[in-house]
Amino acid sequence: MPLIDIAKPMSGVLPGFVGGTLDRADPVRNDPALQAAAFADPRAGLLMLNGLDPVLAGDTLAIEPMPSGADPADFVMLGQDDNGPLFVRLNADVPHGANFSPKVWDAAPHLSANALAIYGTARALVDWHARHGFCSTCGGGTTVNKAGWARKCLNETARDCGAEHFPRVDPVTIMLAEHDGRVLIGRQHRWPQGRYSALAGFVEPGETLEEAVARELWEEAGITVSDVSYVMSQPWPFASSLMVACMAKAVDDRLTLDESEIEDAFWVDPAGVRAAMNGEPGAPFLAPPVMAVAHHLFLHWLEKMGA
Amino acid sequence: MPLIDIAKPMSGVLPGFVGGTLDRADPVRNDPALQAAAFADPRAGLLMLNGLDPVLAGDTLAIEPMPSGADPADFVMLGQDDNGPLFVRLNADVPHGANFSPKVWDAAPHLSANALAIYGTARALVDWHARHGFCSTCGGGTTVNKAGWARKCLNETARDCGAEHFPRVDPVTIMLAEHDGRVLIGRQHRWPQGRYSALAGFVEPGETLEEAVARELWEEAGITVSDVSYVMSQPWPFASSLMVACMAKAVDDRLTLDESEIEDAFWVDPAGVRAAMNGEPGAPFLAPPVMAVAHHLFLHWLEKMGA
Repeated sequence: MPLIDIAKPMSGVLPGFVGGTLDRADPVRNDPALQAAAFADPRAGLLMLNGLDPVLAGDTLAIEPMPSGADPADFVMLGQDDNGPLFVRLNADVPHGANFSPKVWDAAPHLSANALAIYGTARALVDWHARHGFCSTCGGGTTVNKAGWARKCLNETARDCGAEHFPRVDPVTIMLAEHDGRVLIGRQHRWPQGRYSALAGFVEPGETLEEAVARELWEEAGITVSDVSYVMSQPWPFASSLMVACMAKAVDDRLTLDESEIEDAFWVDPAGVRAAMNGEPGAPFLAPPVMAVAHHLFLHWLEKMGA
Repeated sequence: MPLIDIAKPMSGVLPGFVGGTLDRADPVRNDPALQAAAFADPRAGLLMLNGLDPVLAGDTLAIEPMPSGADPADFVMLGQDDNGPLFVRLNADVPHGANFSPKVWDAAPHLSANALAIYGTARALVDWHARHGFCSTCGGGTTVNKAGWARKCLNETARDCGAEHFPRVDPVTIMLAEHDGRVLIGRQHRWPQGRYSALAGFVEPGETLEEAVARELWEEAGITVSDVSYVMSQPWPFASSLMVACMAKAVDDRLTLDESEIEDAFWVDPAGVRAAMNGEPGAPFLAPPVMAVAHHLFLHWLEKMGA
C-alpha cells in the first residue's frame, strides 16, 4: 500500500477526511470474479450509515457483517484492509442536496483520520449514486457498475447509450489573499454569528486553479491578485468537493463585495488570526473548525509570518 | 479584470488552454435582464465550432455576429471582453465521449493563449450540455439555466426534482515520480509509437490530490512515494478535466506495471529527457507536445535539476 507524508500537516492535526489508508482495490473493480470473492468473503464488513450520517460504535465507525443473500448491485466496495473488504449500502432515499450535518461535526472528534476519511468517501459515493439513478445522456435507468465506482446506462437501444458515468469530484478553490501583512477573510449570510473564513468557489471548465482563485477574488471581493500559490488539498464530502487551498498576493486592499455571496469581509493581521485560532474572547472573528481546510490555511499563514 | 502571473510558465510558453482573459461575467448569469441585454447587444459574437472542433478565420477563431431571432436557450454566454459578449451555440449532435481531435492539434499553433483557452472552455461546455439533456436524479428533461453555466430539471412534479446541474470539472493528477536523479515515464497502448509521458489518473471521491498521486503510482507502477508536491494546473477539455501536475519522491525504483493501463514504463535521466524535449534523433522517447502539461512538468524538472 502507498505510504505518504500527507501534505503539510502544519499543526500535527489533519483536516477532516484526509489520511485514509484503505486500499481502494482498483483491480477488483474491473474483475467480476474478484468482486464475487470479495462479496463472499466471510470477513466482509458493512459500514453503517444513518441516511448520510455516520453511525458510531464506541469511538469508531459502526461496521457490521455483510448480510447473507445481499445483491452486489446494492453496495459499493469501498476497499479492503487487514480486516477484509469493506462495503457500504446504497440508499436512494437519502435527502438530495443535503449539506453538512451536525451529526458529522459531533462524530468527527471521536474518529481517527482514517475512519473519518472512510466515512467521507462512503458519504460522497452514497450521495452520488442516489442522485444518478438515470442517465444524463438519454434519460434511461442506470445500474451500479465497477463495484460501485461507476454507473452504467441500461438503455442500450438509444443512440450512443449504455453510457458509463463516474462519481463527480468537484474542485473548489479556497484562498487567503494577502496584502501588507494581512489576509482577507469573509463570511456568508447563513454562517454562525461571528464566523469568518477564507473565500472559496468552484473551479469552472476552462480555467486553471490559479485562474479560478483570481476570478473568485475578483468576483466576490473586487480585488486583483498578482500571484497564486498552492498550499494543500482536502476531500470535502458535502456533496463531493476537492478543496484546493491557496495563498494569493493582492495588488491592493480596496474591497468591492458581491453582497449576494459575501455578507462581510475584512483584512486581519497575524495577531487577530492567532487570537481567533486560540478562541480568545476578544478575537476579531470566530475561526473555522479544525476539520475545515481553512483552519489549516490560517495555520500555514501564521507559520509563514512567524506569528 | 483579474490579472495573474500564470503559474510557472517555465519555458515562456504556456500549456494549451491556459491563459484565458475573457471576463466570465458571473453577475450576468444570475440576472435575466443583464442576460437579455447581452443577447441583444449588437456587438455580440458567436464563436463558430464544427461539431466540437475549432473553426479558424486566418490565424484566430472564427467569430460571427449572433443570428437574429435566436433562442437564448440554445447558447452559452462564454463571457465578455472589449469586443462585447461572446456566445457559443449548443449542439446535441456532437459525438458523445469524443476524445481529443487532430483538428485541435492542427489549430493550436495558430492561436493565442487566450483564443485557445476560449475554445477549450466552449468545447467543454458544448460537450457537457450534449451529454446532460436529462436529469440524473429523476430522468426528466433538462433545460439551459444561468446563461448556459447550468441546466435545470423541468420535472417539477418528481420528488425533490427541478434539480440544478452544473458542468463537470474532473480533477486528474499527472505526476513525475523521481528516484536517484531519474523520473518515471510510461506509455499507454493507444499512443503513437515511441511516445512516453508522465503517469496520470482521475482523483476519486475521498482523497486529496497528494493521496491520488500516491495511489496512481502504486496502482499503475507498483511504486511507493514518500512526498508529493504541486507544480501547476491546466484545463484539458477532453471532455472537461483539470490536470494537476505534481512531482513525487519514490522510495525505490522497482516497477510492477499494471499492464491493462501501462504498456511500458522506465526511469529516464535529465540528459534523456532533454534529448526528447529537443526532438533529437537518438532520444530515448518521443516527448509530449507543448500543449500538454506533461511537457511543462518535464521542463520544470529539468530546470530543478539544472539540466
